[in-house]
Amino acid sequence: MKFVRYDSPAGPAFGALKESGAIYAIDGDIFSDYTVGAQIGTTDDTCLIAPLQPGKVVAVGANYLAHILESNGPEAIPKFPMLFMKPTTAVIGPEQAIKLPDPSGFTQAINDSDLQDDPFGEVHFEAELVAVIGKTCRNITEADALDYLLGFSCGNDVSARALQMKEMATGVLLMSKGMDTFAPLGPCIATDLDPTNLRIGARLNGKEVQNSSTSDLLFSVASLVAYISQGVTLEPGDCIYTGTPAGPSALSAGDSIEIDVEGIGILKNPVENDTSAGP
Amino acid sequence: MKFVRYDSPAGPAFGALKESGAIYAIDGDIFSDYTVGAQIGTTDDTCLIAPLQPGKVVAVGANYLAHILESNGPEAIPKFPMLFMKPTTAVIGPEQAIKLPDPSGFTQAINDSDLQDDPFGEVHFEAELVAVIGKTCRNITEADALDYLLGFSCGNDVSARALQMKEMATGVLLMSKGMDTFAPLGPCIATDLDPTNLRIGARLNGKEVQNSSTSDLLFSVASLVAYISQGVTLEPGDCIYTGTPAGPSALSAGDSIEIDVEGIGILKNPVENDTSAGP
Repeated sequence: MKFVRYDSPAGPAFGALKESGAIYAIDGDIFSDYTVGAQIGTTDDTCLIAPLQPGKVVAVGANYLAHILESNGPEAIPKFPMLFMKPTTAVIGPEQAIKLPDPSGFTQAINDSDLQDDPFGEVHFEAELVAVIGKTCRNITEADALDYLLGFSCGNDVSARALQMKEMATGVLLMSKGMDTFAPLGPCIATDLDPTNLRIGARLNGKEVQNSSTSDLLFSVASLVAYISQGVTLEPGDCIYTGTPAGPSALSAGDSIEIDVEGIGILKNPVENDTSAGP
Repeated sequence: MKFVRYDSPAGPAFGALKESGAIYAIDGDIFSDYTVGAQIGTTDDTCLIAPLQPGKVVAVGANYLAHILESNGPEAIPKFPMLFMKPTTAVIGPEQAIKLPDPSGFTQAINDSDLQDDPFGEVHFEAELVAVIGKTCRNITEADALDYLLGFSCGNDVSARALQMKEMATGVLLMSKGMDTFAPLGPCIATDLDPTNLRIGARLNGKEVQNSSTSDLLFSVASLVAYISQGVTLEPGDCIYTGTPAGPSALSAGDSIEIDVEGIGILKNPVENDTSAGP
C-alpha cells in the first residue's frame, strides 16, 4: 500500500496510490482501520501534499559511512546515534518550494562577524529515508522495532551549512536545519518495505548527485527506533529522517531537486528565494 | 489572567485560576475568544495538568550569564541564541513525577566506553521561564515580539548531564534533554506579565538552589521570539524554554523540586525512578 494525502473540499484527506497512478479515497484512520473507496483522480490531476503532518520529526546526523568520511574523516564516526529535531512547521509536500532564507532581520540577533554578511552559507539538499511510526512505542527492542512502523517515505533534510557548522560548534542544532520548508516529505508512505537495502539517491536539475543504499546505514532503521524509544515515546505519525549518504551540495533559486528511494517514489521540489520578509 | 488545565469528564479542559485558588471553567478558545463560567473547584481539590499541550518546544542553552560562567567560562558566551528542541512527549504537568531514566536497553546502541556503565550521569533540574506563543508569527521584530505571546509559565529543562555532554560534543542534542517527563510545565500560563525582570528560582526538597532574575538573560524573551521567527513559523501554544540561571544540581528518587517564577506560581514535581522498562 502507498498512502498519499491531498487537499479535498473537506480539508486534507488520505488516499491510496496505485502503480497506475490512480488515487482512491480512504475512509477511516490509516493507523488503525480504514477502507479504500472510489477513485478520486490520478497523480496527473491531483495535487499531493505531505503524506502526513507529523507530531514530531527526529533526524539523524552522520549515519552513512561514506558521508561521514567525506565530511569529517574516520574519527567522526559516531559512537551512538546523533539525534536532533526538525520543527513540524518545516514539513512541506511534493512540488512545494524549498525557500532559500532571507538574512534580513536574521543577522540582527547574531554577534558573530563570520555570519554577518551571509549567516546561512550554502543551503544543501540531503536525500533521506524517512521511517513513519505506526503504533505508540516505548522501550522496544531492535528485533521488534519494524513492527511499530507504518511505512517509509522520502525526505530532504535541507541544511544551511554555514549556520549549521556554527550551531554544532556550540553543541546544538535547530535554525540551520529547522527553517520553514526545510523538511520536504513524500510523495507517499509505502508500507511493507524492507528498509535494509534500498537504493537511495538525489538528482539536481536532472543530474544524479547522490546514489547509495540504505545498507550503508551505520545505525539501521530498527536500531534507531529502538534507541529513541528507550527514552522518548514515539507516537503514530512521528517521522525519523535517518540520515543522508555522500554527495549533498548547494541549492540555488530555480533548481529542481529530486529525492528517490527505491520502492517509495520521487520527492521533487523546486527551489525559490524566500521573499516573505518583504523588501 | 492565569490559565490552568485539568482533567474533566469530557477530557482536558482549560480553567481560570484566581488568586484565592478558585478555578473557573473556561468556554471557548484561550487563543481567541473565550468566556469564564462557573467555579469548578479550587487548587486544593483539582488535579492540574500541564497548562497546554505544545505543538513544539524550543529551548535555549547558555542564556544566563552566571550559569555560562559557572559551566564553561567567559569564552562560552554565545554569539547567537543556542537553540534546540525538546519533544512534546517530554511535557508533564505539576505534581507529575520526573522519571530518572533506566539504562537497561539504552546502552545497547551506545558504543562509547565512557557511557557503558552509566549513560546518563547526574540528572539535573533547570528552572526556566517559558514563553507561550499566542498568535502565529513569522519575521517579526523584537519590538513587536511580546504582542505575539499568550503569556508565561514555569518550566524545568531536566537534563541527563553525562549524555548531554557527549551529545553536545558531536554537535547535537536530543535524548539527554528530551526523554519522557523531562519538560515539566506549569502550574499556569500567566498573561499580562513583563518578562524583563522576574525573580526566578528553584527549591530542592524545600532548600533554595537557584535564585536569579530574568534581567540576567543574555537574549531577552523578545529577542528570542524575534530571532526564531526569522526562520521558523511559531504557532499558538508553541513554548520557548528560555534558559536557566546558575545552580542546577542532581535529582534523586524521592526528591521534590519546585520551580518558582515571580507572577506565575510554583511548579512542583516529585522525582521517581523510571520502572517502565520492566525488571
